[in-house]
Amino acid sequence: MSEDVQTAGAYAYPLLIKQLLHTPFAQAQDQEIVYRGQVRMTYATLRERIAQLANGLSQHGVQHGTTVAVMDWDSHRYLESYFAVPMMGAVLQTVNVRLSPAEIAWTINHAGAEVLLVHTDFIPVVESIKDQLEKVRTFIWIDEPGSEAPAHSIAFANEYEAMLAASSTRYEFPDFDENTRATTFYTTGTTGLPKGVYFSHRQLVLHTLTLMAALASPVAGQRFHRGDVYMPLTPMFHVHAWGMPYIATVMGVKQVYPGRYAPERLVKLIEDEGVTFSHCVGTILHMLLTCPQSKATDFSKWKVIIGGSALPLGLAQAALERGIDVFAGYGMSETCPVLSLAQLPPGAEALDADEQVRLRCKTGFPVPLVELRVVDDGMADLARDGKATGEIVARAPWLTQGYLNNPDASAQLWAGGYLHTQDIASIDPTGNVQITDRLKDVIKSGGEWVSSVEVESLISQHEGVSEVAVIGIKDEKWGERPVALVVLKEGVAVNEDEIKRHVLAFSETGRISKYAVPQVVKFVEALPKTSVGKINKKGLREQFV
Amino acid sequence: MSEDVQTAGAYAYPLLIKQLLHTPFAQAQDQEIVYRGQVRMTYATLRERIAQLANGLSQHGVQHGTTVAVMDWDSHRYLESYFAVPMMGAVLQTVNVRLSPAEIAWTINHAGAEVLLVHTDFIPVVESIKDQLEKVRTFIWIDEPGSEAPAHSIAFANEYEAMLAASSTRYEFPDFDENTRATTFYTTGTTGLPKGVYFSHRQLVLHTLTLMAALASPVAGQRFHRGDVYMPLTPMFHVHAWGMPYIATVMGVKQVYPGRYAPERLVKLIEDEGVTFSHCVGTILHMLLTCPQSKATDFSKWKVIIGGSALPLGLAQAALERGIDVFAGYGMSETCPVLSLAQLPPGAEALDADEQVRLRCKTGFPVPLVELRVVDDGMADLARDGKATGEIVARAPWLTQGYLNNPDASAQLWAGGYLHTQDIASIDPTGNVQITDRLKDVIKSGGEWVSSVEVESLISQHEGVSEVAVIGIKDEKWGERPVALVVLKEGVAVNEDEIKRHVLAFSETGRISKYAVPQVVKFVEALPKTSVGKINKKGLREQFV
Repeated sequence: MSEDVQTAGAYAYPLLIKQLLHTPFAQAQDQEIVYRGQVRMTYATLRERIAQLANGLSQHGVQHGTTVAVMDWDSHRYLESYFAVPMMGAVLQTVNVRLSPAEIAWTINHAGAEVLLVHTDFIPVVESIKDQLEKVRTFIWIDEPGSEAPAHSIAFANEYEAMLAASSTRYEFPDFDENTRATTFYTTGTTGLPKGVYFSHRQLVLHTLTLMAALASPVAGQRFHRGDVYMPLTPMFHVHAWGMPYIATVMGVKQVYPGRYAPERLVKLIEDEGVTFSHCVGTILHMLLTCPQSKATDFSKWKVIIGGSALPLGLAQAALERGIDVFAGYGMSETCPVLSLAQLPPGAEALDADEQVRLRCKTGFPVPLVELRVVDDGMADLARDGKATGEIVARAPWLTQGYLNNPDASAQLWAGGYLHTQDIASIDPTGNVQITDRLKDVIKSGGEWVSSVEVESLISQHEGVSEVAVIGIKDEKWGERPVALVVLKEGVAVNEDEIKRHVLAFSETGRISKYAVPQVVKFVEALPKTSVGKINKKGLREQFV
Repeated sequence: MSEDVQTAGAYAYPLLIKQLLHTPFAQAQDQEIVYRGQVRMTYATLRERIAQLANGLSQHGVQHGTTVAVMDWDSHRYLESYFAVPMMGAVLQTVNVRLSPAEIAWTINHAGAEVLLVHTDFIPVVESIKDQLEKVRTFIWIDEPGSEAPAHSIAFANEYEAMLAASSTRYEFPDFDENTRATTFYTTGTTGLPKGVYFSHRQLVLHTLTLMAALASPVAGQRFHRGDVYMPLTPMFHVHAWGMPYIATVMGVKQVYPGRYAPERLVKLIEDEGVTFSHCVGTILHMLLTCPQSKATDFSKWKVIIGGSALPLGLAQAALERGIDVFAGYGMSETCPVLSLAQLPPGAEALDADEQVRLRCKTGFPVPLVELRVVDDGMADLARDGKATGEIVARAPWLTQGYLNNPDASAQLWAGGYLHTQDIASIDPTGNVQITDRLKDVIKSGGEWVSSVEVESLISQHEGVSEVAVIGIKDEKWGERPVALVVLKEGVAVNEDEIKRHVLAFSETGRISKYAVPQVVKFVEALPKTSVGKINKKGLREQFV
């Protein structure tokens, strides 16, 4: 090792998740963490419970390298697991509880989980798969007060609260290599089996600090700061709820965990607890805006980042009309997840309202340390002119090394030394990124690329439209033609022609190609969703092909 | 290596200074960097000039591991060196130009610098020491337009702007180990020879991201954000100007570099360029507030962090009266430097004005990742009651590994696995830190510890006092007794007794011990300053003992 490289010594400081806790536990001891409005505890209690959870899990044989799987709704318990499990040197598997029982069993086996924490509501699922679980030797029951456990034959070794009550509030979390795996979970791929992604302590710490810096640094509005009240609306099993619980904890802000996402409960928590910062997929925001319980809700202090898929202009406008400070973020399971944020740059307050809405809906500006390129098939950079489109490839310190036990898919993911997102985008001269499509959702019609995302965004602005999805169907003459599946607002009558004319009007102003006008507009009752709440385009294509 | 530790691969992403530039160079290309109001350039030009500087230095034989020393005032050239030199894999030595010529020669030799960049103003110094420089083989002249070079016999190999003009604007900065040394500079220790401290790429990147997150995340005010205009007022040779130029660059904000610190120029730049964020030692702020040129200046958009030594209450009040959003920060050369910031926590706006000023003057809250302890002689934690005082020891990812080529001092610095600051402090139950003294400045009088910092802060509030320093002098009866050296405001008449009664009044309310009332108050014309602008207590003690 050359002389200019510092070697380990007293000064060495590995980037471990436990290091995130020095400042909040010293400075925010009395700050609150709220679960469903029913449980209230302080950060001082969180500190003790993290130690109790670690001691309890140690008693059940969890050690460095053990995988601990959790099946729970969004809760303070999940937050405790986010810290205690990796801080012990174990690996936290956040189980996607919306998958089918067979898929759940497959992911738990594939991750090699040995311990499984099960909320009462998931006892029936676990009962149905328990004989298929290959390595799980310890089941721990999460008993939700007030909910009754159904009959089952699972041999629970302990109950979560009883385990904590019997455990010491002190635990010496050890130092170890910062590249140690901390978490793993499975992407709900559109093809084939779910794929496991995984993140190290170093990666989660760097994602936390950088995203905190990015979220806090705008001039005003659209920012997550120390005075906020945080509530996740992307499930905690899904990419660590975008890593936001780690950021909220470092900031020492009040945190609210809603349990299962019932609209009336979410609205009530936003009102009662004064929630000011959340993040979700567009469909959840759409649900909250349209549910009867929110008719009179004051949303004017609420900031919401929309991710998972594009933020349609129509939804953004509807949210802004309710006073919600809404903007888009971009990332994916493989990227921990955040790569970019659609923040308004300094000076944007001078732009007209429409332009501001458009900026809020963009894929946005990459956060620090993210090297984001839009490239052609040969990995050459395309012009940053806001027009040329190609695949987004990225480097950042927090991207999954690959897919768990899947070297072929991993090699493909990292072909050429960059992570391939399979998203098609352009970058404008200000560095603002705009995704136009998923690689596999792109519609090629009459030799032109049609952006399903763009057409959806335009249709979403029609006053009668509640939700929309655009897919390509094969066409002999044009190759592919776009088809729009539209859910109308309640009590509204709109016909196919009106939607087509609405899009045609944009093609006449040059905003979009005339090939983008849907061949067919179908009105449907609802759009199918994936397990993480995105519109299931794969399902739609299967249905309409 | 165990299976749960991720090994290097395509995903590997070393924390190198060059990675800080991905986002500002993509997103802030048209943003300005201003030097003295005379040179204006964009980030796009900065990008090119960094490459040109690297190419130019390569031509002069700079390679991985070469130490490049710089003697310049605060400038865009220094900013270019902050990036280009370490990004090549070379080491940047920021020479403290306020040291004596002999000390400067000693530091350049001790660091092993082979290349020396010299601003015109420092030609006389370099002329006087050039025969003592052991390893410097290349001198590069920084020719300041409008200033004339004195006669000299230095064989300059090139001139900075000519070198850049002759060099390509493209340079492929390589990847290397993130623990590679990036910078080195010398602390102006109060005893013995200067000591070299040094920081790696990883350390500077982590300091940058974490401090950006900490500075940006307050609710309002007192925060550094994307709409700010930045100007350093701690010299760039001193702890990378607190690392702020790196943060300003990542944020993509307008940056203003003032050259030499002449009060009239600083005031004019604040006015003309709309500077909103700076940092300095208290003596510089005091100079700016009291200089005739600033009488009519509107400072109401200016945020200033005071560090280097305590922020006296009187100075804070004077600054607040001028509309300056002033607060304290804490750190030292050995700590890269920032450990804590005296930000107002959420809810502080409800406190009375006096309490808010006191909070602004505190040592403050440690920034994320900083583990800060106040310990007794046996390294046991003291109570966090705001009363118990002991030495501050710290861990963070950005603390110097030790003193360059000085294993004894390094071992002492890191005794017990924590960096010893030699600052005496208490921590209150909210995690707020208050330094009461330097270990060697503590006054022990009548068996009680008297905080020279606290006495200075109280005397600074007397309406006739411009500056004050308190030191201990030996006393047969009491062990030590405090002596106050006071500079009065112009045209004000105050006598010794009035100052003593002013302090005595605080002791009667229990705010301070009666031993704290100075034995002697001496009125002086000015207080001696160290090379970085702090009051030179060592010099005062020598003078008065």
